[in-house]
Amino acid sequence: MKGIHIAFEGIDGSGKSLMARMAHEHLGSCGLPSLLTFEPTKGPIGAIIRDSLDNVLLQPGTEALLFAADRIQHQAEVIDPAVERGEIVVSDRYLMSSLAYQQARGLSLESLRSVNRWAREPDLTFLMDVPAETGVSRLNGSDNFENIEFLSKVRDRYLELADSMENVVIIDATPSIDDVWDSVRSGIDDAVKMLKP
Amino acid sequence: MKGIHIAFEGIDGSGKSLMARMAHEHLGSCGLPSLLTFEPTKGPIGAIIRDSLDNVLLQPGTEALLFAADRIQHQAEVIDPAVERGEIVVSDRYLMSSLAYQQARGLSLESLRSVNRWAREPDLTFLMDVPAETGVSRLNGSDNFENIEFLSKVRDRYLELADSMENVVIIDATPSIDDVWDSVRSGIDDAVKMLKP
Repeated sequence: MKGIHIAFEGIDGSGKSLMARMAHEHLGSCGLPSLLTFEPTKGPIGAIIRDSLDNVLLQPGTEALLFAADRIQHQAEVIDPAVERGEIVVSDRYLMSSLAYQQARGLSLESLRSVNRWAREPDLTFLMDVPAETGVSRLNGSDNFENIEFLSKVRDRYLELADSMENVVIIDATPSIDDVWDSVRSGIDDAVKMLKP
Repeated sequence: MKGIHIAFEGIDGSGKSLMARMAHEHLGSCGLPSLLTFEPTKGPIGAIIRDSLDNVLLQPGTEALLFAADRIQHQAEVIDPAVERGEIVVSDRYLMSSLAYQQARGLSLESLRSVNRWAREPDLTFLMDVPAETGVSRLNGSDNFENIEFLSKVRDRYLELADSMENVVIIDATPSIDDVWDSVRSGIDDAVKMLKP
């Protein structure tokens, strides 16, 4: 039996990392083999990206190319083999993050699609949707205008992408953790039912 | 006065690194400010590529994306500023290397053009042309069939590209170093004359 690849997406502070972890634990508690991954990865390409994000060292194009390289290498080494083994791979960020964030940094969707030509789309993506103000206030408890402006753009790009991509479920991520998790869990359980035994 | 960007290309053993170094020294001896660069660079992205080339760790797509990332970052940090300062930048390998070698590794020209969309073409490229057998015998003095087969493909791609790209000078790199250098030097001197004072 082949597994599936589920991605959690959303702006910073949307709760996507928490929901990815809860999904991974939920699958484990149901006895389903599951693997939790994230981007940028822990590999050498991921390390350069993280260093750049912290210190703003790289050109937007360089960053887009490195994210794409990190992604397809991780896909070939980790995600695809796990799906082949029948596992449910839960990714905290994937392709949609590049398409949303790097458009907000000024690159065109066409160029981003093109440099990500070797990345597969996940079987299912949960887009955790919150207004930028909510994301920013969850992250640091204070308003940061520049950050709100940027994350508003990212959120708009995410919602546009959700319209044009297949298999994206938009989750209203503004309510309490319990309520958000109820929505996510029911989506996960539906997806697991689709797995052919 | 703006400088120019000159690239030396060719298969392994074609003598392109030697000619790039001689060009750099010749320009210096003529009192012209010149900078010698190479790919993969010494930066962190270049280090991952070199490690992969030595150990065959990466997918062909990952390698293509990393070469493109290394190139545009190097272009933004080193090549473009030097050209702006009026220097003559001499690159030992540039864009054409990716287009030739990675096609020979099985990727399409269209995909390689596309991931290299942010790389500028050099103002002038010298393609040092030798048969694969010559390149391989110069490198290790012995025949290596697998290597000859691969480098023959790379050479064919180089010659195809030279037909379709602007500002590529094909140099017959089979004669003695002195004779090859005479051809290169006359091309360099012509290019320098085009620099507007």
